[in-house]
Amino acid sequence: MGHPAATRGPVRVVGTGLLGASVGMALRAGGVDVVLADPSRTTVLLARDVGAGRLPAPDDGEPLLVVVAAPPDVTADVVLAELAANPHAVVTDVASVKSAVLDAVRAGGGDLRRYVGSHPMAGSERSGPTAARPDLFVGRPWVVAGNRESTPEAVLTVRTLATDVGATPVLLDARVHDDAVALVSHVPQIAASLVAARLRSADPAALDLAGQGLRDVTRIAASDPALWTSILAANAGAVGPVLRALRDDLDTIVAALEQADEAAHAEQVAGGALGAIAGAIAAGNAGVARIPGKHGGARRAYDVVTVLVPDQPGELARLLGDMGTAGINLEELAIEHAPAQAVGLAALSVLRGLGGRLEHELTARGWRVAG
Amino acid sequence: MGHPAATRGPVRVVGTGLLGASVGMALRAGGVDVVLADPSRTTVLLARDVGAGRLPAPDDGEPLLVVVAAPPDVTADVVLAELAANPHAVVTDVASVKSAVLDAVRAGGGDLRRYVGSHPMAGSERSGPTAARPDLFVGRPWVVAGNRESTPEAVLTVRTLATDVGATPVLLDARVHDDAVALVSHVPQIAASLVAARLRSADPAALDLAGQGLRDVTRIAASDPALWTSILAANAGAVGPVLRALRDDLDTIVAALEQADEAAHAEQVAGGALGAIAGAIAAGNAGVARIPGKHGGARRAYDVVTVLVPDQPGELARLLGDMGTAGINLEELAIEHAPAQAVGLAALSVLRGLGGRLEHELTARGWRVAG
Repeated sequence: MGHPAATRGPVRVVGTGLLGASVGMALRAGGVDVVLADPSRTTVLLARDVGAGRLPAPDDGEPLLVVVAAPPDVTADVVLAELAANPHAVVTDVASVKSAVLDAVRAGGGDLRRYVGSHPMAGSERSGPTAARPDLFVGRPWVVAGNRESTPEAVLTVRTLATDVGATPVLLDARVHDDAVALVSHVPQIAASLVAARLRSADPAALDLAGQGLRDVTRIAASDPALWTSILAANAGAVGPVLRALRDDLDTIVAALEQADEAAHAEQVAGGALGAIAGAIAAGNAGVARIPGKHGGARRAYDVVTVLVPDQPGELARLLGDMGTAGINLEELAIEHAPAQAVGLAALSVLRGLGGRLEHELTARGWRVAG
Repeated sequence: MGHPAATRGPVRVVGTGLLGASVGMALRAGGVDVVLADPSRTTVLLARDVGAGRLPAPDDGEPLLVVVAAPPDVTADVVLAELAANPHAVVTDVASVKSAVLDAVRAGGGDLRRYVGSHPMAGSERSGPTAARPDLFVGRPWVVAGNRESTPEAVLTVRTLATDVGATPVLLDARVHDDAVALVSHVPQIAASLVAARLRSADPAALDLAGQGLRDVTRIAASDPALWTSILAANAGAVGPVLRALRDDLDTIVAALEQADEAAHAEQVAGGALGAIAGAIAAGNAGVARIPGKHGGARRAYDVVTVLVPDQPGELARLLGDMGTAGINLEELAIEHAPAQAVGLAALSVLRGLGGRLEHELTARGWRVAG
């Protein structure tokens, strides 16, 4: 960003919504010539106005790279059209599923040597070119999914694009990518939506008991239905097996709870039922422990110190300033707001072993450390 | 806390782990005489040493209030024993399920006029009296679940206890409480555990793509299997119907994805399948929108501004300090760490309409605002 880009232009961006326009802005910041195209005249003009690139000119030569940032369900058709229209260009796309696009490009007779799919793991609650930003991809993984026929040069071109926009390229096969996002993104999305859906008919008194756990589990349930329908349908082959395995685990728990409920009245619960429940929770322990922590390292165990923070501008800053003065780095921060009180609880995670000192330092500075 | 308590002692705390010892410490801070009991001599001596109260004395009179903070599966037996041993005392418990305890106390012939169940919505990753703190309950809901026979005086005694320890009392019937926690706590716990369990066999490359969504959905999957087995078994009657409804929704999605997968090869997806997926995601939108926001008010829509923060002590404090200087209050904060880079992304949520000004103020102060 701000450094000269290694990508050589002209780069043609087809589809100038959030992702396409952000790619354009990031490349423009590196001095690359970016040509914009979109079926919507309004969208492409907006993208130009926010600095994502220029409109095509009559004497433009063939682009060296085409970035297709169309909706997932039309991506393959656009990739095919661009491969045909630009017989020497490398073509990539940024759709969040990769096998379906690759299969369709192959079925459509596209030149697979020049096609390398990709998936930047970035987004925003907002959409469209006006939400675009040159820093959208900074620090995010950008999956580069070459196929067996992709030339090394084509793969390098897309890797360089990812690096130029500030992302971290991750080379993965399309199928491996799709299986991965099924596990780490698509199935969690479905689970969050299903849990949140149960709240539709909840008593308001029940919702008043909601804590940080429910908020965390359901946060992504606010996602866009149209976009997710298209993603899930396009990755049905990878999502299905994971979801069926989850459904089988769920059936086991439902059956165990039915046994436990009957037994509660008979005052004895079958050991097998309790074991099934404990096993499911323990399996969750094992799974969550595998999620990498900060900076791609292994998940770290943190000490957590919870502090009462008056709900006024500057108070949280003062707290973190006191941490900085004490020389203790914050690893994670969660804020919980107390119901009906003008106070929040800030859960400060610090490296294991530093919790005691942090607590001492903060208490000495007048902070109220809570449980 | 620090103010004189309205609760009149002596208060007998039976079970001096995290919750019991914290109740004792909070009451002691208000000047209440607290007598401690626990089947483990070590545990009760530790509780005394951290300031949760004193050991029983030979000339002690009957306590006015007994707080049973035993494990969920033995709570009813302890409540029955305390009701019998202290024929004038009000007895409450702090187990996280209420109907099962009430039913067992009724079945055991306990004096229900003097029994009022309760459930403080507080806890900690740590357990035992050494993790106890007088502020554990500050700002948290404390459910007071009287039964039909509870006297108004008994209910008032438990309400006063909740207020004295800094919690917000919430009066709920035991069944309403159990249905509520099934929805907002127990079913989310199961969903988080099941999603996390799928990660056990994940390719490390897949886990490297994990973003904040997965981390949020699975955070509570790190919970204690033994405790949760006991909670879920004791609330099986309330959890079961919610879980079965969720399972039915899941079956619908599994079937829709199977249709979509077959259709992908036939290049046409049945409209019904897509509609089912979109409907599930939209139902999640509707459910999550009902979760109350900060300070018990309706969930607010926030503007989110994401800022790059160097990963050094004091940098986040400086950022929030700049927000404070600009007079803009932080509503929510999420920190995401970029893989393999010494930089974090701080997502600052502010009241809708303030995002533009915040972005302007931060940019003017040299911060890099990301997407």
